Amino acid sequence: MALVNDHFLKLPNNYLFADIAKKVNAFKAMHPKVDVISLGIGDVTQPLAPAVIEAIHKAADEMATRQGFRGYGPEQGYDFLRDAILKNDFLPRGIHLDRDEVFINDGAKSDTGNIQELVRWDNSIGVTDPIYPVYIDSNVMIGRAGVQENGRWSNVLYMPCNAENGFVPQLPDRRVDVIYLCYPNNPTGTVISKAELRKWVNYALKNDTLIFYDAAYQAYIQDDEIPHSIYEIRGARKCAIEFHSYSKTAGFTGVRCGYTIVPKEVTAATLDGERIPLNPLWNRRQCTKFNGTSYISQRAAEAIYTPEGKQQVKETINYYMQNAKKMLTTLRGLGFECYGGENAPYIWAKTPETSSSWKFFEEMLYGAHVVCTPGVGFGPSGEGYVRFTAFGSHEQTDEALHRIENWLKK
Amino acid sequence: MALVNDHFLKLPNNYLFADIAKKVNAFKAMHPKVDVISLGIGDVTQPLAPAVIEAIHKAADEMATRQGFRGYGPEQGYDFLRDAILKNDFLPRGIHLDRDEVFINDGAKSDTGNIQELVRWDNSIGVTDPIYPVYIDSNVMIGRAGVQENGRWSNVLYMPCNAENGFVPQLPDRRVDVIYLCYPNNPTGTVISKAELRKWVNYALKNDTLIFYDAAYQAYIQDDEIPHSIYEIRGARKCAIEFHSYSKTAGFTGVRCGYTIVPKEVTAATLDGERIPLNPLWNRRQCTKFNGTSYISQRAAEAIYTPEGKQQVKETINYYMQNAKKMLTTLRGLGFECYGGENAPYIWAKTPETSSSWKFFEEMLYGAHVVCTPGVGFGPSGEGYVRFTAFGSHEQTDEALHRIENWLKK
Repeated sequence: MALVNDHFLKLPNNYLFADIAKKVNAFKAMHPKVDVISLGIGDVTQPLAPAVIEAIHKAADEMATRQGFRGYGPEQGYDFLRDAILKNDFLPRGIHLDRDEVFINDGAKSDTGNIQELVRWDNSIGVTDPIYPVYIDSNVMIGRAGVQENGRWSNVLYMPCNAENGFVPQLPDRRVDVIYLCYPNNPTGTVISKAELRKWVNYALKNDTLIFYDAAYQAYIQDDEIPHSIYEIRGARKCAIEFHSYSKTAGFTGVRCGYTIVPKEVTAATLDGERIPLNPLWNRRQCTKFNGTSYISQRAAEAIYTPEGKQQVKETINYYMQNAKKMLTTLRGLGFECYGGENAPYIWAKTPETSSSWKFFEEMLYGAHVVCTPGVGFGPSGEGYVRFTAFGSHEQTDEALHRIENWLKK
Repeated sequence: MALVNDHFLKLPNNYLFADIAKKVNAFKAMHPKVDVISLGIGDVTQPLAPAVIEAIHKAADEMATRQGFRGYGPEQGYDFLRDAILKNDFLPRGIHLDRDEVFINDGAKSDTGNIQELVRWDNSIGVTDPIYPVYIDSNVMIGRAGVQENGRWSNVLYMPCNAENGFVPQLPDRRVDVIYLCYPNNPTGTVISKAELRKWVNYALKNDTLIFYDAAYQAYIQDDEIPHSIYEIRGARKCAIEFHSYSKTAGFTGVRCGYTIVPKEVTAATLDGERIPLNPLWNRRQCTKFNGTSYISQRAAEAIYTPEGKQQVKETINYYMQNAKKMLTTLRGLGFECYGGENAPYIWAKTPETSSSWKFFEEMLYGAHVVCTPGVGFGPSGEGYVRFTAFGSHEQTDEALHRIENWLKK
């Protein structure tokens, strides 16, 4: 009898954003004439950079000729892109990586979801809380997260990040096998200092813990002191795998390209204590279950690193960060306690009068026709918060803030 | 201590095609002036169809404007493509599917590798032998394949396909939980009749077996009697998941797009015997670990279904099938026993004088400077065979045949 992987049955039915979409659609069905503004899902709205568009056209023209046609690319990605990454994202920060430590992918969601395949099914995991749901859900699917009780998984250590601790997670008081960190943080928009990040690397080295470090939002960092990569910390290449994405950096949510760094020095152990480097294992995983990213998307990504590309991408990031600034000012003016938004495109706001996340979400949807993301959807410590994203157009963002203001005045 | 998933360590170090590339590169390093022709890896060589190129340009131009910009698409793919698939690939064969039974992906390799996540880790699997290595390797990585002895995995049933049985696999004499079938077959290029396929569906229904049916090469079928989809067989939608690819249909190996059909009626059981539909589980898997296929690739795929696109794609398939015809004639004229090549772009040839696959591969590489794929790389029953692909240009193919002829005459 074909048996189902029953770990799937432990999962809540819906992915968070599918849940939100459902509720928004229900509202729209009842109010077909109302124009709802979403500051909910972290999706960008501004067009691709001209340098990127040009690269896509050029790649398409190549594919139209026998000479320029490219079939299967390397599963790990083309050297032209891997080299551009090393040269632009790492060398200027003093980080020396080899080309074959870079794996191009179709976006960070795939790799942050798949990376757990490299460790044993019974390893324990730790997450800062609230957190991007993919980290936990991908572990649930293979049985690693254990069973769920009261919104918590039995084999997951939750490290709360909230106003009380200034969104600085505390090191666990016991050892954990694998820890997920995401900075600048999704969903809170907060960042980690080098000193704090060093504590985590030291913890990992001391406890033989693997760190899966999600740097998807590093391009939004404005403060020079904040690390863009965990490899800015000495020792990190022995214990950390890092995920990057062009989704937010360059508006690639529909183009699909990102990359993962698996240093050759990162290892995990067998039961006998033998150290196994994870770089060849990830390579084997990718060669078996992935056939490389679209050539056109890789050429598009390469264009981000040209002088024009860099300038254009920076302008778009500035555009979104202007939204963030305005949102912070307005929401604070309206009495919201807000966090993040200074080095990240997310603002994490405490709901007024300790309203629950979902209750506030629904009230604002029905009262102001503005969509946010309920914080509790990111984990238990997100209860009583909501996330706003700065990815709207200026006009939409202004209008949304205006509506929230009017709604609260009522 | 972070523990490695030690199932990975059971795998041979290299993926088959990486092994071949290594040997070819070693030859090239020693003979830098020799131009090697590859009829090895199944990668296409002809440019994308003009209709496809036009669609890519158009999609890029949309992405350059605020109004036309598309961010995250649905994880399941855009409706425009799902509808085109239903209308063109299934309805004309009398197969009625719902839109949400179609999942767009970045190529069949990802989904044929990932689909095993839906079943329990201890389900048994069956494969026709020889077979595409991804089916087994992806099961090895999660421990489902058991341990390897003499080139066979302990929890895998191998169903030999060879000259002796006319490449018609026999139904297993015991029950198996999951069976992988691929028709037209990679690597043998042979096909399955409706009558034979019906036996498999009936076996699956009787034994509560899941069939993972890989139809990646269906566009090469020339004979009207050969099924293009397992859903042409009554009852298949209760037991089969089907994989399609644009890689070979339309030269998308570098574009990355395909799709998977998960009918709502397909179920697997819990230990308590409860029937669980797999469609929502696959949906949950995709929403968690995948962020949709590039919008541009999806528009490119849509263009295949326009009248011009259909015509252009058909011409390219005919081009490759002309190669196949010539290869069959020439190789048979040289005394090779050949199979496949009539409804598939692969020719499966018996090595002369019962030479081993790898020995013949090396001899032909060094003697004729032509690369084939050693049959044993696809499984134990592939020993003593090699695979030739028809995906070269006419010129390359002619030259390769010419070289083989001269080499054998020596």
